[in-house]
Amino acid sequence: MTKWVYSFGNGLNEGRAEMRNLLGGKGANLAEMASIGLPVPPGFTITTEVCSAFYDNGRKYPADLQAQVGAAMQRIEDAMGLRFGDADAPLLVSVRSGARVSMPGMMDTVLNLGLNDRTVEGLARSSGDERFAWDSYRRFVQMYGSVVMGVAHHHFEDVLDQFKRTLGVIDDTAISAAQWREVVKAYHEIIREHTGQEFPSDPQAQLWGAIGAVFGSWMNPRANTYRRLHDIPASWGTAVNVQSMVFGNMGDDCATGVCFTRDPSTGENVFYGEYLVNAQGEDVVAGIRTPQPMSCARAEEGQHPMETVLPDAYAELLRVRSLLERHYRDMQDIEFTVQRNVLYLLQTRNGKRTAAAALKIAIDMAREGLISKEDAICRVPATSLDQLLHPALDPKAERVQLTRGLPASPGAASGAVVFTAEECEARAARGEDVILVRVETSPEDVHGMHAARGVLTARGGMTSHAAVVARGMGRVCVAGAGSVHIDYATMVMTIDGHSIAEGDWITLDGSTGAVYLGRVATIPPILSDDFNTLMGWADSIRRLGVRANAETPDDAKTACRFGAEGIGLARTEHMFFGPDRIGHVRQMIIADEETVRQRAINALLVFQRDDFVSIFRIMAGLPVTVRLLDPPLHEFLPHAEAEFAEVATALGRTVEEIRARCASLAEANPMLGHRGCRLGLTNPEIYAMQVRAIIEAALQVSDETGKGIVPEIMIPLVATKAELEVARRAAEAEITAVLQERGAALDYRIGTMIELPRAAIQAGEIAHHADFFSFGTNDLTQTTFGLSRDDAGSFLPFYVDHGLLPKDPFVSIDREGVGALVRMGVERGRAAHPGLKLGICGEHGGDPDSIAFFDEVGLDYVSCSPFRVPVARLAAAQAALAHRKENAAA
Amino acid sequence: MTKWVYSFGNGLNEGRAEMRNLLGGKGANLAEMASIGLPVPPGFTITTEVCSAFYDNGRKYPADLQAQVGAAMQRIEDAMGLRFGDADAPLLVSVRSGARVSMPGMMDTVLNLGLNDRTVEGLARSSGDERFAWDSYRRFVQMYGSVVMGVAHHHFEDVLDQFKRTLGVIDDTAISAAQWREVVKAYHEIIREHTGQEFPSDPQAQLWGAIGAVFGSWMNPRANTYRRLHDIPASWGTAVNVQSMVFGNMGDDCATGVCFTRDPSTGENVFYGEYLVNAQGEDVVAGIRTPQPMSCARAEEGQHPMETVLPDAYAELLRVRSLLERHYRDMQDIEFTVQRNVLYLLQTRNGKRTAAAALKIAIDMAREGLISKEDAICRVPATSLDQLLHPALDPKAERVQLTRGLPASPGAASGAVVFTAEECEARAARGEDVILVRVETSPEDVHGMHAARGVLTARGGMTSHAAVVARGMGRVCVAGAGSVHIDYATMVMTIDGHSIAEGDWITLDGSTGAVYLGRVATIPPILSDDFNTLMGWADSIRRLGVRANAETPDDAKTACRFGAEGIGLARTEHMFFGPDRIGHVRQMIIADEETVRQRAINALLVFQRDDFVSIFRIMAGLPVTVRLLDPPLHEFLPHAEAEFAEVATALGRTVEEIRARCASLAEANPMLGHRGCRLGLTNPEIYAMQVRAIIEAALQVSDETGKGIVPEIMIPLVATKAELEVARRAAEAEITAVLQERGAALDYRIGTMIELPRAAIQAGEIAHHADFFSFGTNDLTQTTFGLSRDDAGSFLPFYVDHGLLPKDPFVSIDREGVGALVRMGVERGRAAHPGLKLGICGEHGGDPDSIAFFDEVGLDYVSCSPFRVPVARLAAAQAALAHRKENAAA
Repeated sequence: MTKWVYSFGNGLNEGRAEMRNLLGGKGANLAEMASIGLPVPPGFTITTEVCSAFYDNGRKYPADLQAQVGAAMQRIEDAMGLRFGDADAPLLVSVRSGARVSMPGMMDTVLNLGLNDRTVEGLARSSGDERFAWDSYRRFVQMYGSVVMGVAHHHFEDVLDQFKRTLGVIDDTAISAAQWREVVKAYHEIIREHTGQEFPSDPQAQLWGAIGAVFGSWMNPRANTYRRLHDIPASWGTAVNVQSMVFGNMGDDCATGVCFTRDPSTGENVFYGEYLVNAQGEDVVAGIRTPQPMSCARAEEGQHPMETVLPDAYAELLRVRSLLERHYRDMQDIEFTVQRNVLYLLQTRNGKRTAAAALKIAIDMAREGLISKEDAICRVPATSLDQLLHPALDPKAERVQLTRGLPASPGAASGAVVFTAEECEARAARGEDVILVRVETSPEDVHGMHAARGVLTARGGMTSHAAVVARGMGRVCVAGAGSVHIDYATMVMTIDGHSIAEGDWITLDGSTGAVYLGRVATIPPILSDDFNTLMGWADSIRRLGVRANAETPDDAKTACRFGAEGIGLARTEHMFFGPDRIGHVRQMIIADEETVRQRAINALLVFQRDDFVSIFRIMAGLPVTVRLLDPPLHEFLPHAEAEFAEVATALGRTVEEIRARCASLAEANPMLGHRGCRLGLTNPEIYAMQVRAIIEAALQVSDETGKGIVPEIMIPLVATKAELEVARRAAEAEITAVLQERGAALDYRIGTMIELPRAAIQAGEIAHHADFFSFGTNDLTQTTFGLSRDDAGSFLPFYVDHGLLPKDPFVSIDREGVGALVRMGVERGRAAHPGLKLGICGEHGGDPDSIAFFDEVGLDYVSCSPFRVPVARLAAAQAALAHRKENAAA
Repeated sequence: MTKWVYSFGNGLNEGRAEMRNLLGGKGANLAEMASIGLPVPPGFTITTEVCSAFYDNGRKYPADLQAQVGAAMQRIEDAMGLRFGDADAPLLVSVRSGARVSMPGMMDTVLNLGLNDRTVEGLARSSGDERFAWDSYRRFVQMYGSVVMGVAHHHFEDVLDQFKRTLGVIDDTAISAAQWREVVKAYHEIIREHTGQEFPSDPQAQLWGAIGAVFGSWMNPRANTYRRLHDIPASWGTAVNVQSMVFGNMGDDCATGVCFTRDPSTGENVFYGEYLVNAQGEDVVAGIRTPQPMSCARAEEGQHPMETVLPDAYAELLRVRSLLERHYRDMQDIEFTVQRNVLYLLQTRNGKRTAAAALKIAIDMAREGLISKEDAICRVPATSLDQLLHPALDPKAERVQLTRGLPASPGAASGAVVFTAEECEARAARGEDVILVRVETSPEDVHGMHAARGVLTARGGMTSHAAVVARGMGRVCVAGAGSVHIDYATMVMTIDGHSIAEGDWITLDGSTGAVYLGRVATIPPILSDDFNTLMGWADSIRRLGVRANAETPDDAKTACRFGAEGIGLARTEHMFFGPDRIGHVRQMIIADEETVRQRAINALLVFQRDDFVSIFRIMAGLPVTVRLLDPPLHEFLPHAEAEFAEVATALGRTVEEIRARCASLAEANPMLGHRGCRLGLTNPEIYAMQVRAIIEAALQVSDETGKGIVPEIMIPLVATKAELEVARRAAEAEITAVLQERGAALDYRIGTMIELPRAAIQAGEIAHHADFFSFGTNDLTQTTFGLSRDDAGSFLPFYVDHGLLPKDPFVSIDREGVGALVRMGVERGRAAHPGLKLGICGEHGGDPDSIAFFDEVGLDYVSCSPFRVPVARLAAAQAALAHRKENAAA
């Protein structure tokens, strides 16, 4: 005889967690909870095989189903000491569908099944609450009417609305027992009217009606569509779960509550939650009565902890708590009901928690032996570390929100508003906290950004200049706040009617994108021992190396502090914007006379060499990849009147001549213009100077420290093999010259960015001339999509909102398109040059989803902004674990 | 006994054309010429096997080689009636190397071998020209001294320079026989001094010295390097060719000449060339004496045609001419010498010719049965057709060249210079011929360009806006003429000191890039019957369809006239710039009020519908692909003060508001900005209007003509499947609406441009929603290379000059990079959607090399500017033939 029905609860547990295919997801979960000894309300599951048999046999049930259901109902009645349909102490049940995989919205639940005009009176008596009984009944009739009998919801709602209008009440809570009785009558009438049938008063008829509705719903059009879209075979079928109802509002020996097995805010290992005596679950949420604490330890004067009010149930709860954590091996969020001093667990699930709590719970549980180190690593969402590394707004502080932009660089900061980089530097030098506000930022603003506590822009996306640079520096940034209007002339910004002048204070929350008026208190970040422990564990597991993108001594130090294993991208152009340098840069670009030009280049050589010396010293022998000049020359040109004059004087030319020369260098699409190695090839003296500076610095620091510095020189924006071949040859000629002059030897690497589709396609050819590749996924995303980061703000949010793109491809790598090119570059590069070192230095290097992809395609390392290094270390470990798991499964 | 030596000439022809491996390239050619009865000077070839044997046996010759060479020399002596080393009538020979494949510069030739102090006197006597004899001797000594004996060239030149200084002469021609005798003496001295050896006076010693030098040269470092670079195995060896010298300067029964078997300028089937009696080849070239015509028919009064002066040799030449054309099946360019009334053919090769001649010769030869139609198709370079379709400068007209830019759009045109599109239109409306001169052009200049005869720009490359638009319209264009300086304020341009004001005339040659002062006479194009015949043949052979890129009625008519089979790209944005439309376009973009905006859109609907009606009418049922709006909206915005005011008035706003709105739409990289389907998706009403206009027009013209118009609607700049899916759904909704309103039915297609790397990579996904793909290789090249067409001018020429790119990738498709993406798009698209129609509509659609590639990857059609249609038809046929040939070979 086939077993069609599996009971659970009250010690008779016929199912197991593994029987998901037979019992459905919900049935298997209930079986699991019951089987480990959790006090779930007793019930049973009708298997998915019944569903299949039902459809195979012309919608008829197997012959012995009725008998098995009857026996199982009997077991529930025995367990609860109630009888289904009993006029005095009626058993009520819920009926729910449950397929192998969750199919949300496919079928609603029917609660309180078993009520009729007679049993409702029994419920009123046993609960001592007539109003509750009739309210439960009317809910049941409405649910059953719509779910089982097919009467549209709104018919019931229309009647209730009409009724409330007549009574002149607004809230359901104002309706009395007698009035609910009227509503039930009206509902019965609606059902009669729309179906031509009476509402079934026989509980058995109700039960089989509900079971039939669940099986019938498996083949309704909504479910068919859902299955087609999600590739779920119809043959799987659904199970039906029938479970005893329990009530926490039947007297003072009853209660209901919600709690967490540990503190979800701090992670502390204490029982955390609240409960209400003689209440239903919704009362806890509704906030009409004040919930009470669980334990005496957490109770304040005048509160009534469950520990003292319901000591037996509380003791049982403590047993349940430890059972849960041992079984589920994670902090649980539970709902419970106490009915007549008996504890029932209605639901358990992994609890949501703050970043700090996630970290503490993971480390604690690993130490307690509940989980492994590997589990601990996977328990902390990598991106959540950002919250731990930056100051946050004090949750208790009052605030007036002005607007919200994009959360471009995390943390919170307050300061006086300034509108120019110069003013920013000046005030910061006087010790003021400053927030730089710009329509958008450009490389000229970098020094101002460095001096600022935070940056606010009106335009630009998550990967706009402001966002990228701010993240790199660890400065708070809110970008693309469209309602910010800046008038540079009057030095005032307006935000939705608020007018904020230079010097007024605002506060930015870079983790949410919010902008607040005035100063909002912040709390500093705490890098706990737990943090260091987790990082250590992650390092022991990850395969991917983690480097940082850094070019200032400050950034390099931050990178080291956060555990970077080298610098994957030092952008030399950032070094050109210093006030002591930009003049020379401009002369180098604009001078016609060779001697003037060479003098400017020589001056820059000294600065660049000093820059590299500092970085090499800080990195103390770790690898440093230096990218030669990348942006188009016009980025360095003067804009302001005074700057034109300055350059003109320095070069002995008229302002008009300088202006004309600058205009002639302007480009229609600078992103696709005369930059990267194109510059280096047409102006070989610039790259020669940079290469010389790198090599001279490496020699100097090698001498000083005795550690052999092995600089990695990176040629940007290569599209063809020939470009790299020629650029490499020129670099090597300069290196040879320096080494001969010094009579020294030095090991070095020369490689290239792979940041153009053509470079990825031709990676096999290009690899012949490269010691390493670094994927520049920012530019690669721009060119693969034909999408400018600077301009995408006008439509990318629309795209993401409308499902045209799953997410911003500058934040998380587009695996299908950009990712396909990265994979191609890796495969072709390695095939042609097996020793090729492969890394990535785009913004994606700090994004966990992207890091998982980079691990999968087999890169050697990722490089990200210094503040993302811990995120990358953790994400890399998680990727390695996911990889292991896949391999084990395969 | 191995045969080491193969004789040729004078009836004894031991070799054959096929024996290239044994005789080397030159030897096989000589054998071929001799064997078909051409009177080549007699000689012999020492085989490549001797070379191999030489190296295999420690640089020793096979034992019987000397005897075979002796016998072959004997045969030359007999044929020429001269003896090698004879003091009275010496035989002179040339010695040349000749490997299987040409290895230029590997070894020089030795001429006049056999001369010494005695035989030189015999040559003087037999030629009656002592000076010639001694000049020949000194040339021989110098050649032999350097090539065989290894004395550096410059030693001989130093002596000669010194000698000429002493004599006070500048030209070699002023040196007498006696003086050359002194030079020879000095040369002998140099050789003695540098080698310690005497110059060999024994002709046999000379001969074996030269043979040894040829074989020795096979293994010299230069040859080894060359072979390594070109993958030529050393085992191939070289052959040595020894051939009798013949002289055209031994009296009045001697002559020398150069001729073509047909007129290389017109293609006419007449013998064409010139000759000189009693002269050497170099005399014909030197221009000291005036060469005479070949035939009486071509002789003018007072000229001495060869036909009458040397009737026997002329008759022989006529026989040779017909022999040559029958054998080589192409017009030949020959050099000949008559020595003592005997004709010798020194060289024959396929003759260079003009485009017109190439066409005529190909058609004539096919009609004469000399070649097949297929051959004829391959004989006309496809690009040369451009010359036939446009006016050209009259070659006889005098001219003053001002400068030279890029030959951006072919043909010649004269006109008055204007500097604005407005003035251009105004003057053209008054019937003036006008040349529009701009620093660079933008979409706003298009109407001016249309009114102009030609366009000159100071900036921009072969695919700049000016170049692309001008080619599309068939307007002459010289682009990127860097020495042109335009002052818009004073309306004057200066070119290298010439000052040219508005209204002054200039002439452009768009085929060469030259700019001339004033009006230079032009000759109109002639589309001959031959042209039509060739096109007909090409059409019968090509597999690729050929469409045109056209959006104006004029362009559409031109396209039809040139045989386009449809329109592959009608750019709707060009329709937005008309003076009657741009106002509405601006209102549509800038208006905030929905009603104002909708009114503007409704106004545009009427214009667009009329545009499509005209085009559909002209194309009479041929397919028309209409691309929905592609450029970013800011391209349409006002720039001039008056325009701002106009828009402000129309919308009832202030100029400042309008200016701010325009500024907010500006983009950093418009190429990668808010354009294409991104616009269509965020502003669905624009695409809806365009779709409605297309469908309404198609219905109207279908009704009028009874021909079912099947419009092809193309969505630009798609990067993801979702974009096309949503845009298609929106278009279909609008189409359904129109068809329902009209109660009509219409067949239509919806497809997309594949112009972003991501689209090519994801072509399989995208194909599910597309009826067709059109590869937009302009944008695809920009994004694949990360290279803006507008900005590439500053470094692309440098790249091509320095071999960093083989050619401009915007002109001829980059097969390795962009081509790889096209191939990927084709393969993935077809795999997912077998019926997918595939075309290309970038500039590459008119480039023969690119067309060959598109044929190879299996596109269905190419689409190019109307004037390139004949080029594309011919190139497509040539590609099909090349394809057939490959298949036959495989």
